[in-house]
Amino acid sequence: MSIPSALLWEGGELRLLDQRQLPHRVEYLRIDGIPAAVDAIATLAVRGAPAIGIAAAYALTVAARRSGDVAEVLKDGGDALIAARPTAVNLRWAVERMRGRGAREGSAAALADEAEAIHREDVAACRGIGEHGRDLIKPGSNLLTHCNAGALAVSELGTATAPMYLSHQAGVRFHVYVDETRPLFQGARLTAWELGAAGIDLTLICDNAAASLMAAGKIDLIIVGTDRVARNGDVVNKIGTLNLAVLANHFRVPFYVACPSSTFDPSTPSGREVIIEERTGDEVRQEHAADAAVFNPAFDVTPAALVTGIVTERGIARAPLERSLHELMEETVT
Amino acid sequence: MSIPSALLWEGGELRLLDQRQLPHRVEYLRIDGIPAAVDAIATLAVRGAPAIGIAAAYALTVAARRSGDVAEVLKDGGDALIAARPTAVNLRWAVERMRGRGAREGSAAALADEAEAIHREDVAACRGIGEHGRDLIKPGSNLLTHCNAGALAVSELGTATAPMYLSHQAGVRFHVYVDETRPLFQGARLTAWELGAAGIDLTLICDNAAASLMAAGKIDLIIVGTDRVARNGDVVNKIGTLNLAVLANHFRVPFYVACPSSTFDPSTPSGREVIIEERTGDEVRQEHAADAAVFNPAFDVTPAALVTGIVTERGIARAPLERSLHELMEETVT
Repeated sequence: MSIPSALLWEGGELRLLDQRQLPHRVEYLRIDGIPAAVDAIATLAVRGAPAIGIAAAYALTVAARRSGDVAEVLKDGGDALIAARPTAVNLRWAVERMRGRGAREGSAAALADEAEAIHREDVAACRGIGEHGRDLIKPGSNLLTHCNAGALAVSELGTATAPMYLSHQAGVRFHVYVDETRPLFQGARLTAWELGAAGIDLTLICDNAAASLMAAGKIDLIIVGTDRVARNGDVVNKIGTLNLAVLANHFRVPFYVACPSSTFDPSTPSGREVIIEERTGDEVRQEHAADAAVFNPAFDVTPAALVTGIVTERGIARAPLERSLHELMEETVT
Repeated sequence: MSIPSALLWEGGELRLLDQRQLPHRVEYLRIDGIPAAVDAIATLAVRGAPAIGIAAAYALTVAARRSGDVAEVLKDGGDALIAARPTAVNLRWAVERMRGRGAREGSAAALADEAEAIHREDVAACRGIGEHGRDLIKPGSNLLTHCNAGALAVSELGTATAPMYLSHQAGVRFHVYVDETRPLFQGARLTAWELGAAGIDLTLICDNAAASLMAAGKIDLIIVGTDRVARNGDVVNKIGTLNLAVLANHFRVPFYVACPSSTFDPSTPSGREVIIEERTGDEVRQEHAADAAVFNPAFDVTPAALVTGIVTERGIARAPLERSLHELMEETVT
């Protein structure tokens, strides 16, 4: 992989790759406290559910070291971070985990240790997702992915991309159609870039071309990431994921979701309870329709019934998803 | 309606609204012969199946008047025009109709008369579509449309928009969600502009948000245009239409197609036989992914089974579409 890391943690300093500038410029933002982290997360300088969780954990560490009042940083700073993006569960999960550690050991050093553990476990989870998911990719097959659930969204191998990277490294030949992913073009800007840098064969398409490809029998497998999986297996992911899932169902294409187990949120009963972030209409308008009212939800909810399987580092959950997820999460914990 | 005409025919001169510049600039291109017309059609300065047919008819008239060799203009010029965009049937239909008239009366004046008749009939057809389709729009309902099958694509009332304009003029209140329509943003640039100018309440969305809206029960009716209807009722239209039709089927939203009867092509047995124009990858890449391979089909094929009805100036064809279309076309002709 010749692409830069989404996140650098060196000598107690946190730097985030400014993904808004990709693929044109590779620039890192130095994060010196909570406000800078909140801004980076809210404006999508750093994005991808796992990556924003890790970034938040390191940001709390940096802020605690500067302030000295660890409890206050974890409380107020944590709240500000969680509010920066309401949909992805990993952000809240990482903040809560940092708070748990802080309650046991109130030193900045302990927080650094916890953030590093979150980061390390995320790298390992991506590798596990890749190992469990790689057999889904048959030689010569055509995949489709949406948004960026790649190395830029997570660590090292990404989530949806982890099976691709491991298969590619093992010499399996396959082809990936990349949804450009309006409105923010994460597919065109990020996924096409990182898969291309890794030497994986790809074709960029408009989101609108997905049905056409499926109707022509040109898609064998869909893999996407997710920002939250509810207890019943409903999947919250980038706007347009539900479109793909419905199409996959209609054209009988297997539809898989990849995520670390930290994205599973048993406290959310179903997708109905998830707050869907609405973003500014300017992302849609661009220069085209200055005056128009815009509806711009960042995510949609794919019902569990449309999901073939959820690939985690603990194995693949399959229908009935609620029970399968429960078993997967339980058996490894105990 | 305060929007400019897609096409002006005055004093034997043809001028086409350069829709590539919309909504920022209103500029007309003077079309002085076949090459200028071919260029305007191929580069989408003029677009929309009926409008490019009318533009071609006038362009043949202009060229015949200049050249004097009417037969050669109709043969070679006609072939060049048809080749400019291979998918829309109205273009070929209009050229063939001009050739038929030319074979009977080989004067430039006769061609002008025929082109004006095509234009006049198109205006009347749009009005007919509006009359037949307006009852589909219930007070307080939410519509969704894709691309631009409006006044800019046709004449006066448009096709998919004709029921909207007539309902709006009659004081019916409704709301239209407008798909931005990647890659060329005809929804954002053209449909949002013309519906807004007419005072119709609208919200612009990314194509990716359509499933989300349907899942939330926020879409009562979908109406789109079409570039060709095959004998069996398969509908060829802007890329992304098939996505909407599959979603509509899944979420049980009525899915209507609007077109003049000249868009019905009984010589094409089904959508399988239609050549789908592939356009340059640069339309998709923009500044985002300079090196990526791109698949950029301009149209897709929606199978008749996913179409609730086809609204024409002769009435609404409904399932089974093949028989219903046949009856509609026969009974009015005989």
